[in-house]
Amino acid sequence: MTRVWRCLQATGAASRTRTRCFTTSAPRQEIRSIAELPPRVNPGFTETKRHDLLALGWPSPPRNILFVRKDGDRVVQEALLEYTKHVKSTYPDTNLVFEPYVAKQLHEYFDHPVYTINENGSNTPYHEKVDLTSTLGGDGTILHAASLFATAKSVPPVLSFSMGTLGFLGEWKFPEYKRAFREVYVSGAPCHLDDQPPPAAYSDGGAGPQTSSTGGWSDIKGKKMGRSRNSRILMRNRLRIGIFSSTGERLPHEPPFAHADNQCEDIFALNEVLLHRGALPHLAHITILIGSPPHQKTLTTAIADGFLVSTPTGSTAYSLSSGGSIVHPLVSSLLLTPICPRSLSFRPLVLPANTLITLRIEEQNRGKEIEVSVDGVRRKEGLRTGMEVRVAGEEVRTAGAPGARDWFGGVPSIVRSGGAADGEDHWVGGLNSLLKFNYPFGEDG
Amino acid sequence: MTRVWRCLQATGAASRTRTRCFTTSAPRQEIRSIAELPPRVNPGFTETKRHDLLALGWPSPPRNILFVRKDGDRVVQEALLEYTKHVKSTYPDTNLVFEPYVAKQLHEYFDHPVYTINENGSNTPYHEKVDLTSTLGGDGTILHAASLFATAKSVPPVLSFSMGTLGFLGEWKFPEYKRAFREVYVSGAPCHLDDQPPPAAYSDGGAGPQTSSTGGWSDIKGKKMGRSRNSRILMRNRLRIGIFSSTGERLPHEPPFAHADNQCEDIFALNEVLLHRGALPHLAHITILIGSPPHQKTLTTAIADGFLVSTPTGSTAYSLSSGGSIVHPLVSSLLLTPICPRSLSFRPLVLPANTLITLRIEEQNRGKEIEVSVDGVRRKEGLRTGMEVRVAGEEVRTAGAPGARDWFGGVPSIVRSGGAADGEDHWVGGLNSLLKFNYPFGEDG
Amino acid sequence: MTRVWRCLQATGAASRTRTRCFTTSAPRQEIRSIAELPPRVNPGFTETKRHDLLALGWPSPPRNILFVRKDGDRVVQEALLEYTKHVKSTYPDTNLVFEPYVAKQLHEYFDHPVYTINENGSNTPYHEKVDLTSTLGGDGTILHAASLFATAKSVPPVLSFSMGTLGFLGEWKFPEYKRAFREVYVSGAPCHLDDQPPPAAYSDGGAGPQTSSTGGWSDIKGKKMGRSRNSRILMRNRLRIGIFSSTGERLPHEPPFAHADNQCEDIFALNEVLLHRGALPHLAHITILIGSPPHQKTLTTAIADGFLVSTPTGSTAYSLSSGGSIVHPLVSSLLLTPICPRSLSFRPLVLPANTLITLRIEEQNRGKEIEVSVDGVRRKEGLRTGMEVRVAGEEVRTAGAPGARDWFGGVPSIVRSGGAADGEDHWVGGLNSLLKFNYPFGEDG
Amino acid sequence: MTRVWRCLQATGAASRTRTRCFTTSAPRQEIRSIAELPPRVNPGFTETKRHDLLALGWPSPPRNILFVRKDGDRVVQEALLEYTKHVKSTYPDTNLVFEPYVAKQLHEYFDHPVYTINENGSNTPYHEKVDLTSTLGGDGTILHAASLFATAKSVPPVLSFSMGTLGFLGEWKFPEYKRAFREVYVSGAPCHLDDQPPPAAYSDGGAGPQTSSTGGWSDIKGKKMGRSRNSRILMRNRLRIGIFSSTGERLPHEPPFAHADNQCEDIFALNEVLLHRGALPHLAHITILIGSPPHQKTLTTAIADGFLVSTPTGSTAYSLSSGGSIVHPLVSSLLLTPICPRSLSFRPLVLPANTLITLRIEEQNRGKEIEVSVDGVRRKEGLRTGMEVRVAGEEVRTAGAPGARDWFGGVPSIVRSGGAADGEDHWVGGLNSLLKFNYPFGEDG
Ligand SMILES: NC(=O)C1=CN([C@@H]2O[C@H](COP(=O)(O)OP(=O)(O)OC[C@H]3O[C@@H](n4cnc5c(N)ncnc54)[C@H](O)[C@@H]3O)[C@@H](O)[C@H]2O)C=CC1
Ligand SMILES: NC(=O)C1=CN([C@@H]2O[C@H](COP(=O)(O)OP(=O)(O)OC[C@H]3O[C@@H](n4cnc5c(N)ncnc54)[C@H](O)[C@@H]3O)[C@@H](O)[C@H]2O)C=CC1
Ligand SMILES: NC(=O)C1=CN([C@@H]2O[C@H](COP(=O)(O)OP(=O)(O)OC[C@H]3O[C@@H](n4cnc5c(N)ncnc54)[C@H](O)[C@@H]3O)[C@@H](O)[C@H]2O)C=CC1
Ligand SMILES: NC(=O)C1=CN([C@@H]2O[C@H](COP(=O)(O)OP(=O)(O)OC[C@H]3O[C@@H](n4cnc5c(N)ncnc54)[C@H](O)[C@@H]3O)[C@@H](O)[C@H]2O)C=CC1
Repeated sequence: MTRVWRCLQATGAASRTRTRCFTTSAPRQEIRSIAELPPRVNPGFTETKRHDLLALGWPSPPRNILFVRKDGDRVVQEALLEYTKHVKSTYPDTNLVFEPYVAKQLHEYFDHPVYTINENGSNTPYHEKVDLTSTLGGDGTILHAASLFATAKSVPPVLSFSMGTLGFLGEWKFPEYKRAFREVYVSGAPCHLDDQPPPAAYSDGGAGPQTSSTGGWSDIKGKKMGRSRNSRILMRNRLRIGIFSSTGERLPHEPPFAHADNQCEDIFALNEVLLHRGALPHLAHITILIGSPPHQKTLTTAIADGFLVSTPTGSTAYSLSSGGSIVHPLVSSLLLTPICPRSLSFRPLVLPANTLITLRIEEQNRGKEIEVSVDGVRRKEGLRTGMEVRVAGEEVRTAGAPGARDWFGGVPSIVRSGGAADGEDHWVGGLNSLLKFNYPFGEDG
Repeated sequence: MTRVWRCLQATGAASRTRTRCFTTSAPRQEIRSIAELPPRVNPGFTETKRHDLLALGWPSPPRNILFVRKDGDRVVQEALLEYTKHVKSTYPDTNLVFEPYVAKQLHEYFDHPVYTINENGSNTPYHEKVDLTSTLGGDGTILHAASLFATAKSVPPVLSFSMGTLGFLGEWKFPEYKRAFREVYVSGAPCHLDDQPPPAAYSDGGAGPQTSSTGGWSDIKGKKMGRSRNSRILMRNRLRIGIFSSTGERLPHEPPFAHADNQCEDIFALNEVLLHRGALPHLAHITILIGSPPHQKTLTTAIADGFLVSTPTGSTAYSLSSGGSIVHPLVSSLLLTPICPRSLSFRPLVLPANTLITLRIEEQNRGKEIEVSVDGVRRKEGLRTGMEVRVAGEEVRTAGAPGARDWFGGVPSIVRSGGAADGEDHWVGGLNSLLKFNYPFGEDG
Repeated sequence: MTRVWRCLQATGAASRTRTRCFTTSAPRQEIRSIAELPPRVNPGFTETKRHDLLALGWPSPPRNILFVRKDGDRVVQEALLEYTKHVKSTYPDTNLVFEPYVAKQLHEYFDHPVYTINENGSNTPYHEKVDLTSTLGGDGTILHAASLFATAKSVPPVLSFSMGTLGFLGEWKFPEYKRAFREVYVSGAPCHLDDQPPPAAYSDGGAGPQTSSTGGWSDIKGKKMGRSRNSRILMRNRLRIGIFSSTGERLPHEPPFAHADNQCEDIFALNEVLLHRGALPHLAHITILIGSPPHQKTLTTAIADGFLVSTPTGSTAYSLSSGGSIVHPLVSSLLLTPICPRSLSFRPLVLPANTLITLRIEEQNRGKEIEVSVDGVRRKEGLRTGMEVRVAGEEVRTAGAPGARDWFGGVPSIVRSGGAADGEDHWVGGLNSLLKFNYPFGEDG
Repeated sequence: MTRVWRCLQATGAASRTRTRCFTTSAPRQEIRSIAELPPRVNPGFTETKRHDLLALGWPSPPRNILFVRKDGDRVVQEALLEYTKHVKSTYPDTNLVFEPYVAKQLHEYFDHPVYTINENGSNTPYHEKVDLTSTLGGDGTILHAASLFATAKSVPPVLSFSMGTLGFLGEWKFPEYKRAFREVYVSGAPCHLDDQPPPAAYSDGGAGPQTSSTGGWSDIKGKKMGRSRNSRILMRNRLRIGIFSSTGERLPHEPPFAHADNQCEDIFALNEVLLHRGALPHLAHITILIGSPPHQKTLTTAIADGFLVSTPTGSTAYSLSSGGSIVHPLVSSLLLTPICPRSLSFRPLVLPANTLITLRIEEQNRGKEIEVSVDGVRRKEGLRTGMEVRVAGEEVRTAGAPGARDWFGGVPSIVRSGGAADGEDHWVGGLNSLLKFNYPFGEDG
């Protein structure tokens, strides 16, 4: 899984090979299209007393689980098998979804079908079917998982496990996977799972794969859970990004961010969009405009290695290295951070999330292309004079009063709970343990 | 007007002298108590399509206008006289309110009473009577004006004029005063002022000074205004600040922030609260905690010259000099910025506005007091071991849906309009012209 | 003149064409090899009372003048013709030297031969013949001129003219060219030029081109100069740079820095050497070692976009954009400045000029090449795991006591003189006018 | 030992009490004046192959040892007794010197006289007698010890022990005291101590205290040392500081930096001189000039909390907290670092050590005093409008060629040696272990 701006269509050759799988007769080793899966279960998010986190609540148990893993690592591969086998055997109503090339690698290990997107036929995108995404790897794996929903306005919750050391986005350590998954799975279930009927029967026409007609949480295997709190959700805002030609026409995004139907709409980023001089050690000339026409205003024309527009989530990523402030993920805002500007007086800016920021390539770049990357994935085609990148924050909640509003947009990230750490502000903890924030001077400090 | 933490009670001596004024028989040269003024007119603030600014709307014309001016400057003094005479003669229903010592200096120039607070008797604070504050001076004058409402949850709109060069908070240049005042005054009036009856008759019992029984905007003198848009308001969030003893008891604030009735509640700041080592070149040891009990968490114990907790408004003040990012005033947030920390890894933080930040004085300061200042005014008494400053952002709007919510809290700052500048984002303009943002290298750049 | 790491040998094809020129019979339009020029005149540099600048002194007038110009700009082209025609007619003993492709473009404009390097035959490098280099363009042109001497331990003085706006390295504005050239030319001449015999007759065997047998300064045409001070020299230290394979073998440099004879020795840089992740938005892993074996010590392994090792001259170039301090060109030192490091606690370092700094590519880069650039020119071949860049400051003077020491190394840069500016510290002036150093806040500031 | 600008004369009262000691008859418990001590032994410093450190060489063994300790710490007190008793019994020719108040506390513990300065009589300053200073405490203790030589052009070597955790200036841990002292003591002795006659007999007239007539190193007690290398010296440059009235007259320094004879000359600082707004949260207006008249040039007028001019040694102290670069102590330079400047474009500067920097108090401070501190000790009297602080680096070596030059100026700091650490660059080690330089992100990093 090299993360590239690759095209769903472009992977046609690979998928043709894979198409064979769909015609395989044995029930094991089978790869099916996610089009066959029951429809997505949309969870609700309730505001909690601890105002910064939301409570996850499923109307009925999640079924279609997308597993995303880091590439090229045997340990991760084996962990994924252990994890998915546990999920399927403990929660038999669940369906395992993988990315196509992972499905191809793994389907032989299971005696039931696995699911993936089918580029040739139905073109059903992940976000129409996936109830929950779970990642195994590092921050890069989470960014990649988010990129699979880069054109979706509603993203399923993400349960992320770090292999080895914790990253900044990842929340759980792999050995916690049983507890973590169960906690997510039962979020929203009635308090006494065993005594109560399922909250609601639901059916999708019967032909669907492994949906239990008894439904609900009643038949969870394994040890009793007792009273369980709902999983806590940190709703991470994303950026909306559009790229425009010098004549104002929208340019198509490249995969993995491209729309299945190649319609040119905005894509969403979790960390940032980067404009950069690229490989040549010569400065980029970029004009930055703030606001939407007719109230758009030129902030400045800047000469620099590049520019970042980042989310608060991305404030601890590239923006931090470039001198940006650390912004809590719940501050509704955008960060504009220059990279090596040719000016003593360019200070990072924090703007309201609903600000439209336009970055326009200036003529002075004399034909040299400016590279554009989203969440660490470079667009193959660079930007030329007059082209624009337009960025704004995604809106993440309805206007309703607190407690009564709907939540949409954002990446619902399941926050670690349990033990001493429960109720702790994971963000403050991360500053200290991961960023080595404010390490004082002195021996053994 | 030296800005000190002075006490309303402490100024008793001075006010005794002034008390004579209240008994003066001549109608001219008279200083009266604001207690005699009609009650405050509370304006409404409506969200506009340009989402970042609000539209001001008076239910009836403002009457009690507080004028605050910079001290010790003859030019400002004369400008104030010219301005107030214009206001009173053009809008005869208005009442001029001054700070006590200014009232004393100026009342002889008017042939009608002027108003001020009366420390001895009614103890009516400004915010119970003042409809509109207008300042003449620089940013410091605006900060001072704000400090007069430091204990008020609802602050009247502020119309600020800069004398000489523009400051960062000030919006209008003095020569614009006639147009600026009229625009504010008629905000909320029916569209065709001259053809229509006043929107609503209002009375305050009749005994009040100079309230016109005809009321409303009908009898504005001077040239017709034609159609006029409503004044635009930038609602600036403030900080709530409480100071606590090492045993957790609330300590009284010192003037000018003290409550008239000496009740110990929070005070509000427009820029920031500063903890600093003060005059001795030795480091301060301060522990920073994030969140409210029981979810409070220690962020770090830091060794530094000091710390700032600032509003987005204050992000261009002291925080900027200390290396903080520039945060747009409409990003609902708090900034935690260290001053000269003894660590390579303390980066400025931007936190959600509703975060409670606690700064606790550590024992290692060995008896040395840590100085605390609010908006550039130092508290006479410093802080000793175990004492805490607790800070959070002021809440500035109700939870209602956009367009339907009430606004409270914040300092409603009237934004400059008119001419080419109209509709422009004054904030972006200020970055460029006032902060010299991103001045590129090179000759004549 | 695109600045690339190009090879003298590699330009063989082009030079073959040019070889025809050497056989041309007409004396005009002739391009000759610099091998035919009289030997280089080495100037002396004397310490002055203003300790930071040196006084230039020629033993006899400079003859072989290399003119380097910015490419692709008609104005510069015409200025160069005007300038060189003036020099040749006023100082007939001088010989005009150009880069090969410039010689080819310009030789038709002269009725006397011009000189250039001859790649096919004698392989005489510039530094064996050039007495003085004069540049027309910007900072980039000066960097390019310096790169022509990148393998020379002794660099002739540089007289640089800026076209249009001043750069940071350029010293003179083009309209001053007559005065500037004369001042340099006569530096070292006896005080009363007209009354005195030439200081010393010198000959190079007679066969040389246009060396006047009368020699010396006696026959300067044009207006009398009167008493003239010697030109002032700022001796700019360079970096020595070597690139080594993972097994410790020295790798060849690429042009323009390669040695004519392809011997692998260090090259010199005026601004900096840059290691950078290049076009892919992934981090570079680089270990930094300080000191020479056996006292070499690992400073740190760093993860960043890249690293700069720069001279004090380069401290106002890329290093400044990356957050480095501004270091006066006379502080004998090296700067180590990270670019976007993944650490809160990497602060720029200033090390003694004689420190050996080694940058080693780590395995974690997983095969991705790290790009290396010198003075803004990227090496075509990047660096792979285990390769090292070794850098130290060039030594710029002998150990002798002040006043009695020899100067070698460094780029002797002729500093602007005359008028009000005379005696002024051009460096302080540049900070203010070019870098916009310490622009205070506020209107019209 | 509170570090204050205290006056030798001002402590007269205290010293009167102490004067009794000088007349005490018992040889024990006696406090004598250092005037009675033999003259100072001036060591030589030889350049070594490891170019950055010098080799210490005594012409004859050091005798007069000044011990400086941190105050108010029982552990330090007891360590000092253990250490001094060891020194006196192992090297009986040595004389113990203390600061007056320490001498008073400790003399009863010894059965031989101890020495201190005598304020009433001879006025012999420390630097006329002390051969070696040894400190017990932290960086503050070393700064204090250096301040005792703040008016001396030649400072004896300093052997510093840290109690508890290492500081940045301190070199040795206390348990190493025996080895460390011996190594220093024998630096310069002939190779085979036991076989050879003393290098030179020296006498000071016989009447002196405990000078052995056999002299030299021959009679060192304790175990044989075998071949021993000479101690390594890091010569730390200081700043020269003068304070001038608005009419250009030199103002007296305050103790501890005042000259014994109250002559107003420059004082020397090891870390920095600080100008600061002090306790009032209002900005300081200071003009900075570079160079000596008539070549002095205004760099800028700056508005800030304050300014630092620091040595490379001080670059890891206050300057670092203010955003300055880290400068190796062997880079001959000065750092100009602003503290919270009201400008986006004030970047720290590194200037040649011989630059004269003038900081002038501007009128805009309107009477408020600017506080001035040297190495963390505040001058009681602040600076008013027009006053100037003039600073330049101390010159630390003669102009001779390397290997043949004399060293004067600077604070010769004895660098830690031994074991694995031997030959290591202690500075690089300190960056990592003490400053937590480049702590990478990530768990357990
Ligand atoms: N100089 C720098 O700091 C650079 C940073 N990046 C960042 O890397 C991201 C892509 O990640 P990978 O594909 O894994 O590339 P990668 O393998 O180059 O690693 C990027 C590093 O950034 C960390 N990271 C990613 N997102 C983060 C976040 N939100 N907060 C804190 N740390 C975070 C990862 O843990 C990893 O250590 C980009 O979105 C960009 O933010 C990319 C290039 C340079
Ligand atoms: N080193 C620094 O930057 C310091 C800054 N201050 C700031 O000064 C404020 C008090 O102001 P004065 O009483 O007038 O003190 P003052 O007379 O010392 O001037 C402070 C300066 O800050 C500017 N300023 C104030 N608020 C601002 C804002 N929100 N954005 C941009 N610039 C702003 C003013 O225009 C003035 O230039 C404090 O609230 C604090 O923020 C105070 C001390 C030091
Ligand atoms: N982000 C940045 O600041 C970058 C800076 N550079 C610098 O550009 C240099 C190459 O110059 P060009 O070929 O003209 O590239 P260029 O056309 O990209 O321009 C570089 C800019 O740097 C200025 N500059 C060059 N040397 C300077 C110095 N010593 N002090 C102050 N300003 C200086 C030039 O005037 C020009 O404005 C490199 O040596 C590197 O230092 C190169 C890439 C990025
Ligand atoms: N915000 C800051 O960083 C401040 C720093 N200081 C520094 O403190 C020094 C005075 O020291 P103390 O009397 O002990 O005051 P102190 O008790 O306030 O401690 C100052 C701290 O600075 C460290 N330090 C001193 N010199 C150092 C050096 N050259 N390199 C690295 N660390 C060093 C000490 O170990 C101690 O941790 C001043 O010269 C000044 O440089 C003083 C005030 C504020």
